[in-house]
Amino acid sequence: MSTLHLPLAPELAVSEWFNTPAPITLEGLRGKVVYLHSFQLLCPGCVAESLPQVRKIERLFGSTDLQVIGLHTVFEHHEAMTPVTLKAFIHEYRLTSPIGVDQASDGDVPVTMARYGFRGTPSSVLIGRDGSILHHAFGVEDDMAVGARIAMALAQPVPAAAGEAADRGCADGRCALPGADA
Amino acid sequence: MSTLHLPLAPELAVSEWFNTPAPITLEGLRGKVVYLHSFQLLCPGCVAESLPQVRKIERLFGSTDLQVIGLHTVFEHHEAMTPVTLKAFIHEYRLTSPIGVDQASDGDVPVTMARYGFRGTPSSVLIGRDGSILHHAFGVEDDMAVGARIAMALAQPVPAAAGEAADRGCADGRCALPGADA
Amino acid sequence: MSTLHLPLAPELAVSEWFNTPAPITLEGLRGKVVYLHSFQLLCPGCVAESLPQVRKIERLFGSTDLQVIGLHTVFEHHEAMTPVTLKAFIHEYRLTSPIGVDQASDGDVPVTMARYGFRGTPSSVLIGRDGSILHHAFGVEDDMAVGARIAMALAQPVPAAAGEAADRGCADGRCALPGADA
Amino acid sequence: MSTLHLPLAPELAVSEWFNTPAPITLEGLRGKVVYLHSFQLLCPGCVAESLPQVRKIERLFGSTDLQVIGLHTVFEHHEAMTPVTLKAFIHEYRLTSPIGVDQASDGDVPVTMARYGFRGTPSSVLIGRDGSILHHAFGVEDDMAVGARIAMALAQPVPAAAGEAADRGCADGRCALPGADA
Repeated sequence: MSTLHLPLAPELAVSEWFNTPAPITLEGLRGKVVYLHSFQLLCPGCVAESLPQVRKIERLFGSTDLQVIGLHTVFEHHEAMTPVTLKAFIHEYRLTSPIGVDQASDGDVPVTMARYGFRGTPSSVLIGRDGSILHHAFGVEDDMAVGARIAMALAQPVPAAAGEAADRGCADGRCALPGADA
Repeated sequence: MSTLHLPLAPELAVSEWFNTPAPITLEGLRGKVVYLHSFQLLCPGCVAESLPQVRKIERLFGSTDLQVIGLHTVFEHHEAMTPVTLKAFIHEYRLTSPIGVDQASDGDVPVTMARYGFRGTPSSVLIGRDGSILHHAFGVEDDMAVGARIAMALAQPVPAAAGEAADRGCADGRCALPGADA
Repeated sequence: MSTLHLPLAPELAVSEWFNTPAPITLEGLRGKVVYLHSFQLLCPGCVAESLPQVRKIERLFGSTDLQVIGLHTVFEHHEAMTPVTLKAFIHEYRLTSPIGVDQASDGDVPVTMARYGFRGTPSSVLIGRDGSILHHAFGVEDDMAVGARIAMALAQPVPAAAGEAADRGCADGRCALPGADA
Repeated sequence: MSTLHLPLAPELAVSEWFNTPAPITLEGLRGKVVYLHSFQLLCPGCVAESLPQVRKIERLFGSTDLQVIGLHTVFEHHEAMTPVTLKAFIHEYRLTSPIGVDQASDGDVPVTMARYGFRGTPSSVLIGRDGSILHHAFGVEDDMAVGARIAMALAQPVPAAAGEAADRGCADGRCALPGADA
C-alpha cells in the first residue's frame, strides 16, 4: 500500500500523563506503529466497548513494537471528569498503557481532539511507522478488523526516512524540508 | 412463603437525591415491592453489568408497582466520585429511577451500606411488600433469576399490616409498638 | 389475572418421545405449569438462543413443579431432520427434558404445530395450572421476561379441577377413569 | 518470519463438495492464503462460535485473495450427519464458501482429519502462500487474533514457486504438467 498521500498524524497536546515516566510525543515514536484511542471516563460506549478492546489489543500485540496511547478528550461535563477522577478510573479499570489528558482549550473541545477532528468518543487512530494516519474511526469497530488492520501496519517495513524525518522535526501534521522554516 | 422470620430492611440514610422531587423512605413505600441497588460510578462491574440490568428491570416491570431505587455507596476514591460527577454520570447513563447518595460516615463505608452489611458493589436487595428483605445479593445475578424473584415478590398480597406498621413508625429496621419510643 | 377467557392448550400429537420413560399428555399434567418449546435441529435461532434459554429455565426452576417439554416440529428439510439425527442432536446438546417428535401430517406442517398455529421455530407456549395458554411466543424472548412470566404462572394456585383430575389418577402421562384402577 | 521449517499442509481428501462448481485441491491454491476450518453439523461449539467466525472472516477478507474452505469431518454419529443433512444445514446456516465432506475411512476418523491430526471439532488451519501450515488450532480463537494472523499471512509475498505452478496451469483444482493441455 502506498502511503504517500496519507496525512501525517498531528502531534499530541497533553497537560498531564498517567502510566508513563516521561511525556510522550508521536515524533519520538516515529518508526513504530501507534494505536491512539480517545475516550471520556463518563462515556458509556468507551467504558463498555472501547476500553475492553484496547486491553485486548495490549495483550495480543504485547510482544510487538505497537505503542498504545490513550487520550482523555473531555468535551462535556468538564467539572465531572477531572484528572483526580481520571486517576481513580485508571486504577479501577486496570489501564496500563500511557494515558494523556488532552490539553484544555478556550472552548469545550480540547486541543488534540480539535487537531484530529474527532467527532466524539470513542475515537481511534492507527498511525503507521512513517507517522501517517492509516485509519481513523469514530465508534468501536469489530475486533477482527482491528486486529487485521494493526497486523497489516506492523507488517510494513520501518521506513528509512523515519529517523531522518524525526531529525528534521515532523510535527503538527507536516514535515519541514531541511533548512526550511518549520 | 412465610416471611415471618425475614429481617426488616433498614431505613435509607441519604444525603442527596437525584431523579426524585422529594426524599424517599422505605417506610413510605411499605406495601410496595422495592428493588434497591447499590453501586459506585467507578465500579466496572456496576457499569458493565448491574446498571444495564437495572434499566431492564425498569422497563420490564414499568407497569407494576415495583419501586427501583439506586444508592451511590462510595467506600473508596471518595474524592473521585463526588455528587458533581455522579450527576453527570446519571445523565450520561440515562438512569431514570431515584438515586440517593449514601450518607458519609466517619469511616470509608457510608451509613446505609454499613446498615445493610453490603460487602461491596454492586449489591442489591429485594424488599417485599411488608418491608422484609426477600433477597440480598453481592454481584450481578442472572437476568432470569432476577425476573423470577421480582415477579414472585409482586405476586405476594399487600399485607393488611403494612398500613398499620407504617402508622406505628417502622424505621431503622425495627417497628415500634404503639406508644413505645421509636 | 383472570384466566377465564384464555384458550385451553391443545393436546400434543407425538410420534416418538425422547428423555421420558412414558408418553406425556398435557391432560396428564393438569395442575402443573408447562413450558412447551418448539424447535428444529437445523434452525439457527433455536440452536443459538432458544435451547440455551431452555437449559437455563430447567436449572432455575428445577426445584419447582414446572414441566419443560420440547417439541421437534419439522416443517422443512424433512429428510434432513429425522429421529436418528434428532437423537444424536439431543445427546450432543445435553438436552434432558422430555422431547417429542411432532406427528407428521399430509402436508409439511406437523400436527401439533398446526394445532397451536406456530408461525415457525423457535416458538414457545406457557401453559397454566388449569391448562390454559398464558403466553405464546414466536422467536426468543428476553430472559428476564421469561423468568418473570414463569414465576407468575407458578404463583397461581392449583385449581380445584386439577386436584379432581389428579384424584382420578392422572399420572405418568395417562388419566384413569373414576373407579378405574390407576 | 522464516517459514522454512513449517510443515506443508497435507492435501484434502474429499468425497463430495458443496458450494463449488469443481473439486478443490490445496495444490491448486498454492500462492493463495487458505483458511481451512473443520466442523461437524451437530457440534455445538462449531455452530455457536466457529461458523459465525468463519462468516465474519469471509466478509472481512472478501476483497483479498484469501480462500476459505470448510471441511465436514464427521467422527461420531455418522448415521446422523449424512450429506443430505449437511446440505440442508449449509442452506439454513447460509454458508457460502466451498465445503467438502471429509472422505470416510475404515475407522471413525475420516481421512483428511487423520492427515492433519485434528483432535476434534472445531479445528482450523491457516495455510500460507507457500502451502505451509502457519497456524493450527483446536477450538475457537479470539476474533482479534484470527484477524491479525490472517492479515500477517496475506502480507507475505507470493513465492516465486507459486507463480511457476500457476504458469503451468494450476487452476480449477488441478495442475497441468508443462506442455500438457490445461
